[in-house]
This record gives sequence, structure tokens and C-alpha cells, in this order.
Amino acid sequence: MTDQSLIKNAKEYPWEYEIGEEGRDDVIRWRTFLASDKTPSQGISMGVLEIPPGAVLGAHHHSPIEVYYITSGEGQCLCGDTVKPVCTGDVVYIPADEVHGIKNISDQLLVLEWVFACDSWYDIKYHDDEVSFF
Amino acid sequence: MTDQSLIKNAKEYPWEYEIGEEGRDDVIRWRTFLASDKTPSQGISMGVLEIPPGAVLGAHHHSPIEVYYITSGEGQCLCGDTVKPVCTGDVVYIPADEVHGIKNISDQLLVLEWVFACDSWYDIKYHDDEVSFF
Repeated sequence: MTDQSLIKNAKEYPWEYEIGEEGRDDVIRWRTFLASDKTPSQGISMGVLEIPPGAVLGAHHHSPIEVYYITSGEGQCLCGDTVKPVCTGDVVYIPADEVHGIKNISDQLLVLEWVFACDSWYDIKYHDDEVSFF
Repeated sequence: MTDQSLIKNAKEYPWEYEIGEEGRDDVIRWRTFLASDKTPSQGISMGVLEIPPGAVLGAHHHSPIEVYYITSGEGQCLCGDTVKPVCTGDVVYIPADEVHGIKNISDQLLVLEWVFACDSWYDIKYHDDEVSFF
């Protein structure tokens, strides 16, 4: 994708789901704002993730660093071997290859922005980890 | 700064101002969440920027790409030679060295998140541009 400026509203980006979970309201879903497969982007891939009450993004790791910025809700976040509560306004920095995951422990929607230091998160190799953090 | 995980709330980061404007409520101010001078960070530097009614971040450019994510308010955004209205939820992608700026045209606070594809925005060389976009 040619690198050019782009202004587009978050709501114009479609929801994405894990395969087989499309359209369900009890699972995680996300929008991708920037990824070089689909949009201009060089060095940043970002979007938003919604985690309904009780849902979880399981423990995993990948080589690009990642940032979560919690914009609403409460949860428990795994970073390495530590589990910490997170709430609205929390910024979570996740180093390369660090095991991490996040769960919504409240009865409200947990919403976060995610940012990767790479051109496209679609290219990232996700490695699931056998860590139960709840 | 050693690369390690970090969880910290946005409100714990101090407000920063242009030199000579410290503490004023009619000027732009920002918080820096991630910058390798002060925090872990590799490839991403990010924070939040508040623009009061009528205030402006003037036309400028720099070599790292940048993203604005408007979280509240309305404004006019300059990208290259185009001025466009922006509102809550808009994602603005700014390529390397593209002239850009933003002004709050409303009577409400304009708040945006900014993300750079670099270790620290403090290292970025800002070049002001003689472009009046209002």
C-alpha cells in the first residue's frame, strides 16, 4: 500500500472475529485501523479490541512489542509471570516475546486500543502459551 | 531504559507544555506514556494531547510517521495540502515528512492520542512550516 495520509473513523472499520466466532456477542472482537495489507502504514499497526464480560484473550507471545491502552472497563492482565488488575486509562507495555493475556473480570465491556511496532499485525506469528492466569 | 513490561495509568504521567506556557489552560498540553528516555519502549512512542477551544498545533513535519486517534472533540486537520474536519473516533495516519497540524474549532476540549514509530518522540526533529491552514 502506497504511503499516503489517511483520515477514517474507527466505526468505518469492520469488526473482526476469531474463525468460527463471527457475529457472536460473548467473544472478543476487534477492528484494525492500520495494517500495511490494507492501509498505509510503516512501523505501526493498531486497532481496538472489545472483550465482553467473562471473555479472555489467552496467554500468548509474539516478537513485535505491543501496547494496550485501556479505554474502558476493568480486567486482569498477565505480563510475564505476573497478573495485575487493569482499569480505564492504564497503559500496558509488552516487550518482545513476553507472555501476556487479558481477561474481563467485570460485568461491563472491556475496551482497549492495541498498537504493534510493525507494519501489519496480520504478519505476526502468534504463539499460544499454556499459562492459566485466572 | 531496560525493556521490561510496564503498567501505569495515563493520569500518573505529568502534563507537559511548550516552554513558557507551563500551567496555562488556554494552550496545548500533553502527556508522554512511552519514550525510551523515560520508560521501556522499542519502536513506539505515544501519549495524549489536549487542545483547548481555539488552540492550534501549527503546521510542521518530521521524519517518523505519526498517528492521531481523536478521542473527543472536533477540529480541522491539515495533512499535506488538504484541510479536513476531524471528530471523535477519527484515525489520522501521517506519512514521513508530511506537513500536518490540527486546530480545535469547537467550544469543547479536543483530545487525541498520538503514536510515533520511533523509540522516543523527544529525539524527533520538528520542522515548522509556514502554512496557515485556517
